[in-house]
Amino acid sequence: MTTTPHRTAHKIDGKAYAAALRETIATHVAWLKEVHGVTPGLAVLLVGEDPASQVYVRNKGVQTVEVGMNSYEHKLPADVSAADLYALIDRLNADPAVHGILCQFPVPEHLSETEIVARIDPAKDVDGLSVVNAGLLASGQKAMVSCTPLGCLMLLRDHLGSLSGKSAVVIGRSNLVGKPVAQLLLRDSCTVTIAHSRTANLEEVVRGADIVVAAVGRPQMVKGSWLKPGATVIDVGINRIPAPERGAGKNRLVGDVDYDSAAQVAGAISPVPGGVGPMTIACLLANTVTACCRSNGLAEPEGLSV
Amino acid sequence: MTTTPHRTAHKIDGKAYAAALRETIATHVAWLKEVHGVTPGLAVLLVGEDPASQVYVRNKGVQTVEVGMNSYEHKLPADVSAADLYALIDRLNADPAVHGILCQFPVPEHLSETEIVARIDPAKDVDGLSVVNAGLLASGQKAMVSCTPLGCLMLLRDHLGSLSGKSAVVIGRSNLVGKPVAQLLLRDSCTVTIAHSRTANLEEVVRGADIVVAAVGRPQMVKGSWLKPGATVIDVGINRIPAPERGAGKNRLVGDVDYDSAAQVAGAISPVPGGVGPMTIACLLANTVTACCRSNGLAEPEGLSV
Ligand SMILES: NC(=O)c1ccc[n+]([C@@H]2O[C@H](COP(=O)([O-])OP(=O)(O)OC[C@H]3O[C@@H](n4cnc5c(N)ncnc54)[C@H](OP(=O)(O)O)[C@@H]3O)[C@@H](O)[C@H]2O)c1
Ligand SMILES: NC(=O)c1ccc[n+]([C@@H]2O[C@H](COP(=O)([O-])OP(=O)(O)OC[C@H]3O[C@@H](n4cnc5c(N)ncnc54)[C@H](OP(=O)(O)O)[C@@H]3O)[C@@H](O)[C@H]2O)c1
Repeated sequence: MTTTPHRTAHKIDGKAYAAALRETIATHVAWLKEVHGVTPGLAVLLVGEDPASQVYVRNKGVQTVEVGMNSYEHKLPADVSAADLYALIDRLNADPAVHGILCQFPVPEHLSETEIVARIDPAKDVDGLSVVNAGLLASGQKAMVSCTPLGCLMLLRDHLGSLSGKSAVVIGRSNLVGKPVAQLLLRDSCTVTIAHSRTANLEEVVRGADIVVAAVGRPQMVKGSWLKPGATVIDVGINRIPAPERGAGKNRLVGDVDYDSAAQVAGAISPVPGGVGPMTIACLLANTVTACCRSNGLAEPEGLSV
Repeated sequence: MTTTPHRTAHKIDGKAYAAALRETIATHVAWLKEVHGVTPGLAVLLVGEDPASQVYVRNKGVQTVEVGMNSYEHKLPADVSAADLYALIDRLNADPAVHGILCQFPVPEHLSETEIVARIDPAKDVDGLSVVNAGLLASGQKAMVSCTPLGCLMLLRDHLGSLSGKSAVVIGRSNLVGKPVAQLLLRDSCTVTIAHSRTANLEEVVRGADIVVAAVGRPQMVKGSWLKPGATVIDVGINRIPAPERGAGKNRLVGDVDYDSAAQVAGAISPVPGGVGPMTIACLLANTVTACCRSNGLAEPEGLSV
């Protein structure tokens, strides 16, 4: 198979898509307030003082308020007891003004992420991390779908329209990304292959695919020469690599796909940064609106859920 | 690709494997009784008088008792109320002598299979049909795995040893068979492709696979010419087709794979009948022993679960 060297792939602009999605969300939120007197509310729990986590939580709060929803931030000391944390989660589970609950991870070692997630009402688990939501997704029922996989699906549907009958390869099988992405693609009737570190002939597997989703965590691993010409590539990876050209000790972000070579073969590709990344918080807001509609027995707005 | 016409595949003898599995189970049951004073118990609920269901329930009961476990059959009238059925399930959930509960399906139309399954304690859901068990399986945790998929995996492991790195195609994506089989193969580190009615070039997809699991419900659909020479084929299909050679109006059972042509190309193949079929009840018994050990905090016997 020869590649077409002078082609340049369409760049899938996740930043623009996420901005448009936030506008759609804002419109629905305004309608929920006006017509139904309901304001979607998102509660975010932060345990301890991890600086990166503080930035994430702040960003989530800002974007939540920007689309007109209520943001409830709960900051807890690093040594909070599991019992106190669970008591708070129980209160939020019972609070009708709170439609989504998430706990920013990682949490200090004395707490269990699995148990925290299990404590959150599955209907309010807007991160989609609970066993119940994994099971609902796996069995094709209405679930809360975790945000990054949902973002991948939205970008693919937006670019390709129907995904039915397309062959898709997901590289990576984590509970957070790879496996839910595979479930979503299967639900949309792709023929789905899940590859991982034990896969033999990864290049060959990738070369068969109309759609490639890379969620590996290895900088620029997927090369253009691996791709079927015209393939649609979604790069979930976020990797920091040294960038001495920017100055001593500087870094830059790259994906799991080698963008430059891939862009010469792919039909479309999401860049890093500016691809899947910006979709994640937008999908968190989308999930909160979805949860709000479901809990109030209202029709779910189109395009926010699967 | 040319096929090797005079080869004959190894026949994967599910009947013999299931018989050996029942002996292993009987040994564990005897040990549980002697050493721990615990007898695994399986409760089977039958609503109404469907003749086929009565036969299935009877077979399950006979095999349960044969391996030394307690069998509790609950026959309910076809017009039993959901409330009465749930009250019974609640009692069985709370009963420490009952380690597995299953309701024979189909049930009359006024009852919901989904709700019945959801009512059963996931730890006692030995059919592995609940959303919680689907979620545990999907997220790689200890689950109750539904019996037919578990049987497929046992046959594959027995024939191939480690499955790691092998390419597997599962044809069919039902919640009952295809999807859990795919999860189990992924957990064993196959590169897994899930195909279904929307798959383009099914033949080509199948031809790439070291392992083919067919769970479609279409008599003799998969031909020998579709297979990679030496592939291992598990045929889950159970289809009744006319067999006039046996007399007017007679039928016979065939799988989803065209056995005769497949046996000339495959390395190994499970026949129908005598392949996956006999594994299903044996795996139900295995799940009941597993559930009994888990609920008593005892080590799980090897080879009965995943
Ligand atoms: N855009 C976002 O908002 C967002 C959100 C989450 C994650 N991410 C990024 O996405 C990437 C993946 O995240 P994750 O949480 O899924 O990571 P993870 O839990 O580490 O999983 C990585 C997966 O890649 C597989 N893998 C590792 N090396 C491989 C190789 N050489 N060939 C093929 N597969 C290989 C692993 O296989 P095994 O299972 O066999 O080990 C594993 O399934 C990371 O870069 C992460 O930063 C981005
Ligand atoms: N041995 C046992 O103990 C046992 C237990 C359970 C079932 N079975 C047998 O296993 C078979 C499958 O059972 P099931 O419950 O999974 O059936 P099912 O719910 O009807 O699912 C059949 C699957 O096959 C797919 N399919 C249909 N036509 C196809 C085609 N032409 N090409 C590719 N895929 C196609 C369907 O795709 P879509 O999703 O796109 O429609 C669907 O995913 C049946 O024969 C059943 O009797 C045996």
